[in-house]
Amino acid sequence: MIRVAVDALGGDRAPEEVVAGALDAASAEVEPILYGPAGLDTGGLRLVETTDVVSMDEKPAEAVRAKPDSSLVRACRAVGDGEADAVLSAGNTGAMLAAGLLEIRRLQGVMRPAIAVVIPSQRGPSVLIDAGANADARPEHLFQFAHMGAIFAEEVLGIGDPSVGLLSIGEEPEKGNALTLEAHALLAASDLSFRGNVESRGLLSGIADVVVTDGFTGNVCLKLLEGTIKALLDALRQEIGATARGKAGGLLIRPAARELRRRLDPDTYGGAYLLGLRGISVIAHGNSSRAAVASAIRLAARGVQHGVVERLNERLAERVVASARSQTPTTE
Amino acid sequence: MIRVAVDALGGDRAPEEVVAGALDAASAEVEPILYGPAGLDTGGLRLVETTDVVSMDEKPAEAVRAKPDSSLVRACRAVGDGEADAVLSAGNTGAMLAAGLLEIRRLQGVMRPAIAVVIPSQRGPSVLIDAGANADARPEHLFQFAHMGAIFAEEVLGIGDPSVGLLSIGEEPEKGNALTLEAHALLAASDLSFRGNVESRGLLSGIADVVVTDGFTGNVCLKLLEGTIKALLDALRQEIGATARGKAGGLLIRPAARELRRRLDPDTYGGAYLLGLRGISVIAHGNSSRAAVASAIRLAARGVQHGVVERLNERLAERVVASARSQTPTTE
Repeated sequence: MIRVAVDALGGDRAPEEVVAGALDAASAEVEPILYGPAGLDTGGLRLVETTDVVSMDEKPAEAVRAKPDSSLVRACRAVGDGEADAVLSAGNTGAMLAAGLLEIRRLQGVMRPAIAVVIPSQRGPSVLIDAGANADARPEHLFQFAHMGAIFAEEVLGIGDPSVGLLSIGEEPEKGNALTLEAHALLAASDLSFRGNVESRGLLSGIADVVVTDGFTGNVCLKLLEGTIKALLDALRQEIGATARGKAGGLLIRPAARELRRRLDPDTYGGAYLLGLRGISVIAHGNSSRAAVASAIRLAARGVQHGVVERLNERLAERVVASARSQTPTTE
Repeated sequence: MIRVAVDALGGDRAPEEVVAGALDAASAEVEPILYGPAGLDTGGLRLVETTDVVSMDEKPAEAVRAKPDSSLVRACRAVGDGEADAVLSAGNTGAMLAAGLLEIRRLQGVMRPAIAVVIPSQRGPSVLIDAGANADARPEHLFQFAHMGAIFAEEVLGIGDPSVGLLSIGEEPEKGNALTLEAHALLAASDLSFRGNVESRGLLSGIADVVVTDGFTGNVCLKLLEGTIKALLDALRQEIGATARGKAGGLLIRPAARELRRRLDPDTYGGAYLLGLRGISVIAHGNSSRAAVASAIRLAARGVQHGVVERLNERLAERVVASARSQTPTTE
């Protein structure tokens, strides 16, 4: 039985949608355990009582330090203490990162945990890493992110020998900034299926199974992708609604448009994986619905089933880190 | 009469579409002058004969050095020599940047020229700067980019007192990377209408009149925006074409979809402006059509009419640079 600690107070629609999603995800294999206030109606799921809450806009490090008995921090601690196998929150991303570092802790040899998100590309799901854990990164960090992303793609998405691309501003190795130029050299010398620099224009069409970048660029890309999809579908709806002819056509294409929207919905894939910790941590969208919470819990459980942490540990603690260290002098 | 030097051999569809676009843009106010090989059929436009060509995939600095008599370099030199008021090429962007620095030269006080592109946002046109001239940037560069972008928005787009946003990964001033944190402080102390950090999700809906970022992030955003719009409209067409009902609806919404596509077409706005030189330099898309070339020539001419270079010179040579220097110690 896989136990997933669920922060019942995380997200804009907590606790109702979170509890409902947890109930949906409960199965013979998966036991969601809710962390939240006494008296919460859990529909029969196990409740671990907590007394505090981290809100969406609190400063992460301060909130985690000041609120050790918050639902978010307690749910993370459950993984650190072995009382749960994975944790899920739709709450404050920065606080999940801070609590993960504090309560679950980094795997040995991991310089920086990174956020992996699944991009619903036209060729199938692909991984963007780092999607926002580290605003500033060094080349050797990107090198580790590439390995973490590849393991995630293999184990969670079931992609054999995933191709890895380095996000840059031109496909030629010499195009990029100081960070990508150095990271390119490290990746080219690795045993990953490295296909060189990739450009962002191919992100949604599926340019590589794993797209590696720093957390600033990755976060900008993720939000731009989401914002553009939304703005474009809204604009199309508006344009169609402007004429009677368009309206009639709009009714006819509604199922197709809905299918497209569903396929591109970030919630379909359930959330962001925080990789590099001694346990599985999944962060769902702040406005997650019941369905999004349920799929995020399933995503977390899949990571446990496939031994993602053990695979990361094997690969990062030994070969990868040794290799990165031998190639770039670092003070870390 | 505004003279625009046009690189007749720049772009994937040169010289045919370039010449045709130049003919379309020719008017009582604007004289396009073509730079290209002897014997080129210019339809009556003035031709300055050149003997060499810079191709799309050549290394910029080397190509510009090795080919002083190429159509691209000669067209840039015409601006430097005062034989033309502006230059346009749909060719190698890096070579246009290198030739601009060499032949047109930087305005006094400008640390780094930057590329400004017009984003067709839902609130109307807005400016993204730097869209790719400088892969690595410092805070004081972003500070100058903001001023250059604001002048461009005022003079070329006709936006009074443009709002300026700093692209980052959260709206709070403390969210971002080392570069944006420092740039935020500089911008907050400026006399621009600075509205703080903005997130990429609002780029297409129109979050600020001027969005400032480094050239790496800006170029990634621009390509992601273009790629996502294309991938999404393609996916919609495919989804609609999958059923008879969808196909019927597709026929009805065709005018609306075409209108949307036109509105979002980067060619509608004619190209990228290279700002910070002693003359106007516009770089059109590599695959520019006749219409795109014509609107890029008009965009270049508008910059001349509105004295963009003079405005930049006034603003950057005096107040801005003094202010940036007094706030951040720099070795430059």
